[in-house]
Amino acid sequence: MTELQIELISVGDEILLGHTLDTNFHWIANQLANSGYRLRWHSTIGDNESDMRHQFRRAWNRADVVIITGGLGPTHDDKTRPVLAQFFEDELVTRLDLAKRIEDKFAARGLKVPFDSQKMAEFPSRAEPILNKEGSAPGIHYCEDNRDLFSLPGVPVEMQEMVTNYILPKLNEIQKGVFHYHIFRTAGIFESGLNELIGSPELLKPVELAYLPSIDKGVTLRLSVSGEDEEKTKSILAERADQVRNLISDFIFTESEDSLAEVILEKMRKHNLKLAVAESCTGGLLSNNFVCVPGSSDVFERGFTTYSNESKIELLGVEASTIEKHGAVSGQVASAMAEGALECAGVDIAVSVTGIAGPTGGTEEKPVGHIFFGIADKKGTYTESHRFDGNRTTNRRRSVLTALTLLWRRLKEQ
Amino acid sequence: MTELQIELISVGDEILLGHTLDTNFHWIANQLANSGYRLRWHSTIGDNESDMRHQFRRAWNRADVVIITGGLGPTHDDKTRPVLAQFFEDELVTRLDLAKRIEDKFAARGLKVPFDSQKMAEFPSRAEPILNKEGSAPGIHYCEDNRDLFSLPGVPVEMQEMVTNYILPKLNEIQKGVFHYHIFRTAGIFESGLNELIGSPELLKPVELAYLPSIDKGVTLRLSVSGEDEEKTKSILAERADQVRNLISDFIFTESEDSLAEVILEKMRKHNLKLAVAESCTGGLLSNNFVCVPGSSDVFERGFTTYSNESKIELLGVEASTIEKHGAVSGQVASAMAEGALECAGVDIAVSVTGIAGPTGGTEEKPVGHIFFGIADKKGTYTESHRFDGNRTTNRRRSVLTALTLLWRRLKEQ
Repeated sequence: MTELQIELISVGDEILLGHTLDTNFHWIANQLANSGYRLRWHSTIGDNESDMRHQFRRAWNRADVVIITGGLGPTHDDKTRPVLAQFFEDELVTRLDLAKRIEDKFAARGLKVPFDSQKMAEFPSRAEPILNKEGSAPGIHYCEDNRDLFSLPGVPVEMQEMVTNYILPKLNEIQKGVFHYHIFRTAGIFESGLNELIGSPELLKPVELAYLPSIDKGVTLRLSVSGEDEEKTKSILAERADQVRNLISDFIFTESEDSLAEVILEKMRKHNLKLAVAESCTGGLLSNNFVCVPGSSDVFERGFTTYSNESKIELLGVEASTIEKHGAVSGQVASAMAEGALECAGVDIAVSVTGIAGPTGGTEEKPVGHIFFGIADKKGTYTESHRFDGNRTTNRRRSVLTALTLLWRRLKEQ
Repeated sequence: MTELQIELISVGDEILLGHTLDTNFHWIANQLANSGYRLRWHSTIGDNESDMRHQFRRAWNRADVVIITGGLGPTHDDKTRPVLAQFFEDELVTRLDLAKRIEDKFAARGLKVPFDSQKMAEFPSRAEPILNKEGSAPGIHYCEDNRDLFSLPGVPVEMQEMVTNYILPKLNEIQKGVFHYHIFRTAGIFESGLNELIGSPELLKPVELAYLPSIDKGVTLRLSVSGEDEEKTKSILAERADQVRNLISDFIFTESEDSLAEVILEKMRKHNLKLAVAESCTGGLLSNNFVCVPGSSDVFERGFTTYSNESKIELLGVEASTIEKHGAVSGQVASAMAEGALECAGVDIAVSVTGIAGPTGGTEEKPVGHIFFGIADKKGTYTESHRFDGNRTTNRRRSVLTALTLLWRRLKEQ
């Protein structure tokens, strides 16, 4: 028993031209992984018959399962159906049952079938149609030479319905092995630091270890393993996950897909705590990290984007003399901002950021990338400063991640 | 002139496992299209040496330019560098200049170079390093057999910097013949509306017209033409650009790469005007659109992220009775928020947003996606409402673009 080799092909000029972000690929990869399969190859080709034929040939030669998305619609640039039929040396025949379904679909909206859409009932003679419950173009399933090819529409809801209710059940029938993974999401440590704590990945074999660093999300670790026996595979993964967890537990904020902001909101919600944010150089980006989470309103109370000195003084009660003496970018001002936000908003915890994001505004003492953070709660105020070496964008994004990390740590200590 | 055949390869298990959405692919495709190139093939492979070798071989055989992203970092699953060296029958040699740069990068953060990171200075002997201004792993440029291969880190900011400042200029050198393009960036109109105003793209031949819609940036139009004679090519492009400009001039906010927020800031700076933002459902994202622009501090005064009702009342002076009577999501509250921000911040113009981003909170009268906007200045207050049909993320992003559009229009009228 070996692992199923699965290949996905996305068809569409709009993807290669950068007009459309290929979320279908991401969604399918995710569904397969969650069901214990692994996508081995993916490629994107344009609406070009020769490129389609080449890629179909390559995929059919090397994979057990080929999934194609896109190009099944009724317009002139939808070429998947005829190219597939040609590739399999098959012919398109009009299927009255499919024509009837398409007619019914249009009739339900009070429409007649447009001339072009009738084409969708011309179906490869040796293939099985995958009924489209969300739209009109049927999917195509070829099962020949001990392998399977599924061709799906590119419209996300139609494609998703077919993957969930047709392809995944089919894969369970032809399954030849199992695959599992586990993730750790970390904050406050670099990839290299984690690497030092964990040591050689060889020690984790047969489990594979991958580091996935992100400037917005921190470093995610992924442990994955494939095998033949469901129970054995799961148990070796759990064992290695315990091993890794022990080495880096201080830095793990979740073992799920949740973001750091989501973890913070969840923790605060549980303890009925309210949050306010006072930010200067991050200019709303920190607040946005919370507000983008559905349901954040029961924790996130308000945000102050105090970009000017006046706004720091008027909204947060920072003393003008503090700004004059230490500068708007200083630990003292970060501290006063957090304390001011705590009091003005009447919340339980407040976090502040003030810094020099660049490209200008740096001095020898406080260069570009020098950022100060403050956290205030009823126990007191804590400040910290960091020096980042990126451009304005990266300095601001790193500042957001750092502020979130400090807040998460503060909540953990309580 | 023949078109450059460009292939992109994304490397990383995390993409095939559906953990990471491959925004690098989308970003690169977009940049190439905006610069007049077309990505012909794209594929994704895992951190697997055999798959990497096969795909490198295939790409090198068929493409003029190969771009690879991912797998250049310091950890064991970063295999692109050794696999590339092997593929080119080259060897890795320690480059002291690169080692020094990596050391300096870490030293700037007060760190020593971790053992694994030293590996990044082992560089293919025949390749050219692409310096990494945002991180430590250098990119790799092979130019052999009359074609080019660029291998870039997967970290978006590092990759983006290299594409912008290294690859695009190189492509301009490689590209034979002349190629020119002109862009129009528009606000307040959909692709279909522009299409109606402009009519058939056939009328613009030999100039090509592309619509590049973006949920954050509005619809960009790109006119492009290639030819052999510099003067003739430029002149036909200018002629067609005039033709298009006449048809859609009301909607053009710039003919440069500037964002709508940049155009607004520039216009306000010129008239010495100050801006404040009061936002609820967009939660800091609107402020961030201004603050992310270097030098925004001479225009952007402050932002209020008034997520709770209390914060709207306390910070912006919205009457509790207004909220009670009309609801926090209403034209009346949007209007009061903008007026409150104008007064509290003592600025010349203020913009407000309040709405139901979703997924919950909708009612029959005010469904999810119903968003209210306000603009206040010394002439008075203007409100507008929109209904978007996306999810929380897209509704919030559309709201930001709409607020920017209204502000831009208001400034234009003055």
